[in-house]
Amino acid sequence: MSETSHGVTRDNRDIARLLIACPDRPGIVASVSRFLFEQGANIIHSDQHSTDPAGGRFFMRIEFHLPGLLQNGSALESAFSRVARGFEMEWSLSYADRLKRMAIFVSRADHCLYELLWQRKSGDLLADIALVISNHEDLREPVESSGIAFHHIPVTPETKYEAEERQLALMEEKGIDLVVLARYMQILSERVISRYPNRIINIHHSFLPAFVGSNPYARAHERGVKLIGATAHYVTEELDAGPIIEQDVQRVDHRDTVEDMKRIGRQIERVVLARAVSWHIEDRILVDGNKTVVFA
Amino acid sequence: MSETSHGVTRDNRDIARLLIACPDRPGIVASVSRFLFEQGANIIHSDQHSTDPAGGRFFMRIEFHLPGLLQNGSALESAFSRVARGFEMEWSLSYADRLKRMAIFVSRADHCLYELLWQRKSGDLLADIALVISNHEDLREPVESSGIAFHHIPVTPETKYEAEERQLALMEEKGIDLVVLARYMQILSERVISRYPNRIINIHHSFLPAFVGSNPYARAHERGVKLIGATAHYVTEELDAGPIIEQDVQRVDHRDTVEDMKRIGRQIERVVLARAVSWHIEDRILVDGNKTVVFA
Amino acid sequence: MSETSHGVTRDNRDIARLLIACPDRPGIVASVSRFLFEQGANIIHSDQHSTDPAGGRFFMRIEFHLPGLLQNGSALESAFSRVARGFEMEWSLSYADRLKRMAIFVSRADHCLYELLWQRKSGDLLADIALVISNHEDLREPVESSGIAFHHIPVTPETKYEAEERQLALMEEKGIDLVVLARYMQILSERVISRYPNRIINIHHSFLPAFVGSNPYARAHERGVKLIGATAHYVTEELDAGPIIEQDVQRVDHRDTVEDMKRIGRQIERVVLARAVSWHIEDRILVDGNKTVVFA
Amino acid sequence: MSETSHGVTRDNRDIARLLIACPDRPGIVASVSRFLFEQGANIIHSDQHSTDPAGGRFFMRIEFHLPGLLQNGSALESAFSRVARGFEMEWSLSYADRLKRMAIFVSRADHCLYELLWQRKSGDLLADIALVISNHEDLREPVESSGIAFHHIPVTPETKYEAEERQLALMEEKGIDLVVLARYMQILSERVISRYPNRIINIHHSFLPAFVGSNPYARAHERGVKLIGATAHYVTEELDAGPIIEQDVQRVDHRDTVEDMKRIGRQIERVVLARAVSWHIEDRILVDGNKTVVFA
Repeated sequence: MSETSHGVTRDNRDIARLLIACPDRPGIVASVSRFLFEQGANIIHSDQHSTDPAGGRFFMRIEFHLPGLLQNGSALESAFSRVARGFEMEWSLSYADRLKRMAIFVSRADHCLYELLWQRKSGDLLADIALVISNHEDLREPVESSGIAFHHIPVTPETKYEAEERQLALMEEKGIDLVVLARYMQILSERVISRYPNRIINIHHSFLPAFVGSNPYARAHERGVKLIGATAHYVTEELDAGPIIEQDVQRVDHRDTVEDMKRIGRQIERVVLARAVSWHIEDRILVDGNKTVVFA
Repeated sequence: MSETSHGVTRDNRDIARLLIACPDRPGIVASVSRFLFEQGANIIHSDQHSTDPAGGRFFMRIEFHLPGLLQNGSALESAFSRVARGFEMEWSLSYADRLKRMAIFVSRADHCLYELLWQRKSGDLLADIALVISNHEDLREPVESSGIAFHHIPVTPETKYEAEERQLALMEEKGIDLVVLARYMQILSERVISRYPNRIINIHHSFLPAFVGSNPYARAHERGVKLIGATAHYVTEELDAGPIIEQDVQRVDHRDTVEDMKRIGRQIERVVLARAVSWHIEDRILVDGNKTVVFA
Repeated sequence: MSETSHGVTRDNRDIARLLIACPDRPGIVASVSRFLFEQGANIIHSDQHSTDPAGGRFFMRIEFHLPGLLQNGSALESAFSRVARGFEMEWSLSYADRLKRMAIFVSRADHCLYELLWQRKSGDLLADIALVISNHEDLREPVESSGIAFHHIPVTPETKYEAEERQLALMEEKGIDLVVLARYMQILSERVISRYPNRIINIHHSFLPAFVGSNPYARAHERGVKLIGATAHYVTEELDAGPIIEQDVQRVDHRDTVEDMKRIGRQIERVVLARAVSWHIEDRILVDGNKTVVFA
Repeated sequence: MSETSHGVTRDNRDIARLLIACPDRPGIVASVSRFLFEQGANIIHSDQHSTDPAGGRFFMRIEFHLPGLLQNGSALESAFSRVARGFEMEWSLSYADRLKRMAIFVSRADHCLYELLWQRKSGDLLADIALVISNHEDLREPVESSGIAFHHIPVTPETKYEAEERQLALMEEKGIDLVVLARYMQILSERVISRYPNRIINIHHSFLPAFVGSNPYARAHERGVKLIGATAHYVTEELDAGPIIEQDVQRVDHRDTVEDMKRIGRQIERVVLARAVSWHIEDRILVDGNKTVVFA
């Protein structure tokens, strides 16, 4: 029930994270910090960003400790809503001990799934993996042996609508907060995407915006690049064009075949995806138009 | 007179940076941000860090814009000193348009010197390089042709005391804020170091704490390491043991000779040193015992 | 039975790798390549290195394809031994389709073990993990469920001799080629080390030679370094002082606690160890005194 | 006159580098190494690469020492041409002590130019910078004070043809081997490009193939990427589409403005360009269709 990270051992029960986005203007930090002080909260971490102090947009993340938080959470929220209104804030408060509920979508590739399963088991990923949905049967065994429900939902052009209905129903039922496409080789329709705005994370196996679409390693090989990469991003309607959360690259050279690139790429993909998922789980990401502010 | 960095174009004349270190306890951010709000300041950037919200040490850097700052600076400082007293703060306020005055010490190697000269010329390093001191004549030409005073002060075991007297007198006269040892191959005595606490930056050509002392590349080659590095740190009395500001590394392999490592290392040294100097110049570094908090 | 890597799809049955180390002098490459040509071999990869063409040591790795290799391997070897004698070569020939037999030693930490198990399963690590030995029971389940024998051999100061006898007997029985210490928290005695010269790979959780010995992350935190690392090396009698195979680092900052460093470090450790093991498995490493030549 | 790099101190006068590209088939290495052995040459470095041992293309770089090389170079070349003919080789022999003659094209940005000037001065870049051509006057001073001829050749749509005639005449006159576009903001016409095939190196300020064309940093900022990069490539008729020689990236985040990206990018650009130029100068690059084989 306790976590040690970025300098603090703490009991998660009394910890919350406040995310704020609003037009920038003087007095925001003073008001928010005064509010928290008066509530008896102790700030553990605070990060802020302004796109422009004169007329830009202001983003803030505060992680605080407040004894008795769970009992008094709703009172706190309604009190804060008065502060928020004055600054036209979009805001959310999340409780560190309420694990986010995650659905993972996979196809046949196992490396991203394994990484998430392993990080959850080791405690590095503090989330509740509520279910895994796949259009193939291949990965049932490792999922079920981890005690997680596995749903095989095949997808064909003809059955896509019904398949998505089943996916949505399952996610609804489980109260899913976050969807992770861990090398899921199907494109989600707008209907699914709009149900989870900025809550579907995809891993694309290229350094976006290079090599949007399919077969990025083959195209990277063809182009003769000297670094290959992977990109985790929120899914929007336009393919591979949503807000980028994290990217990383690895060096390749003339000796590397497409197969070598896929092998090297697997290591990048799983690390980049796991980082992005962790940041989302820990409420470190705010979306600013088609970009992200990541308080890592 | 204006600078564009990290999101903001601004007139430096009305910009200041407040650095704070104090015991952590609730209410610090609320008090400081309220104070600045009441003064009419607009926060541009704010970073904070606590080693432990319960009984640890709290560090904060606030960059703010305040119209009329220069005329009212001392009133602001005396008003803030009352806030500071209540929290037992160590603090300092620096004005963005008052360039820090820098002395560079060199011997014969030119790469770190050139990097600083070039970054100053390009505007990437906003400092006033007031003088260069060297125990050799070699680098007089590039320094003087940049319009900077060059002082050749030879150092031998017999003349070390007098040499340091001359160095100190020159630096006193020029009102030096920061001393940069840009591959200066002499050890400063305690007398010099204590005059500039946490204001002398050295670049050591290894990934500290590996290879403290002389000939680190030869020793790295001998040990067969696969990465070599450089470390910028504040100078303290114990050799190569002061607070580390920045480090970086580069890959080497079995084909690289000691000479190759020196060549590769030169690239790391100059980048690491320039980064550390920039951070100091922009008041981004706070010292916490023998460590640094860097709000980069 | 076929592998695609570094540009070539091939049937492993007819592939061999020749490793050579000898005093450098003119004619070595001409003789070796002529020999292989006359045997009908087709060179797939060839790498070489000389510490000094005048009086230094010469290292070579040749991967070649030779139809009918398996039937004629011993004839080839005895023919080559005549070439080798003339140049005072130390050499070895290994067959790509004969998987090396590996023993993994673990204690309680699972991340390095999981990485090796996963890479073996995915086909990225072409080795036969013949057994896992641990001084604790904790990791029995994942090992056995992968179909690998798990041996719990507790070690105390009193039982160390007998424990090592059991370890050696098990490894003897299985014909182990390579021992991997995947965060095994015991020091092997000289008796074990000398039985597997340059065939025991350890992962040390620091950027050697910094932080030799125990608790490197705590000491890295204490020193305030800005990068932490991991080192894979062959085990020799002197602790953490054997030939370095691979190293890597990751950035940390003032916010990272010792626990954060351990978490970040786990990612480096498993990647660095897996890379070193792969290189050994693929006969890419030659030892040169206390250093390695890695034809990666 | 002597150089120490990758393990060897040597007198450059007796050192040559042989580059070979031909259809792969058995016997190439045996023939070439036998030829060199019979000539009395001692191989210092040898690298090779095959795109496919069965029907692919074979690339080789051999650096060798041969006493009396300069006097006997042409005899050596005509002797080797007989070996080469049998294997349909494209090949070239270059002499380490004959510095390549380089033309640098610049506009107003100085960082890439300064890097090349500094590396030449420090001896890290062993080339003869024969002239600098610019469409602006801005950089005359640093060039001329380095003792290098500076030619201001303005370019407008109307004068482009004449300007290129002058550029070509100057390069002809100086016997230029290599043209380096060090942030030259004009597009060369096909006429110039075809005169220096695979001998014009450009630095593009993005991680190609992302952000081909103008204003890549602004577009990277707009897209919200988390890494920015630079690419050195040979110039071909299609814009930013020639064989990539080297790429590198640096991390950015939401706080970085377009101006910050330009500043960070300058550091990547100069390093990547200098690396590519060094490799070309040292005959380490072979072109394979639209890709490069770099024996770094």
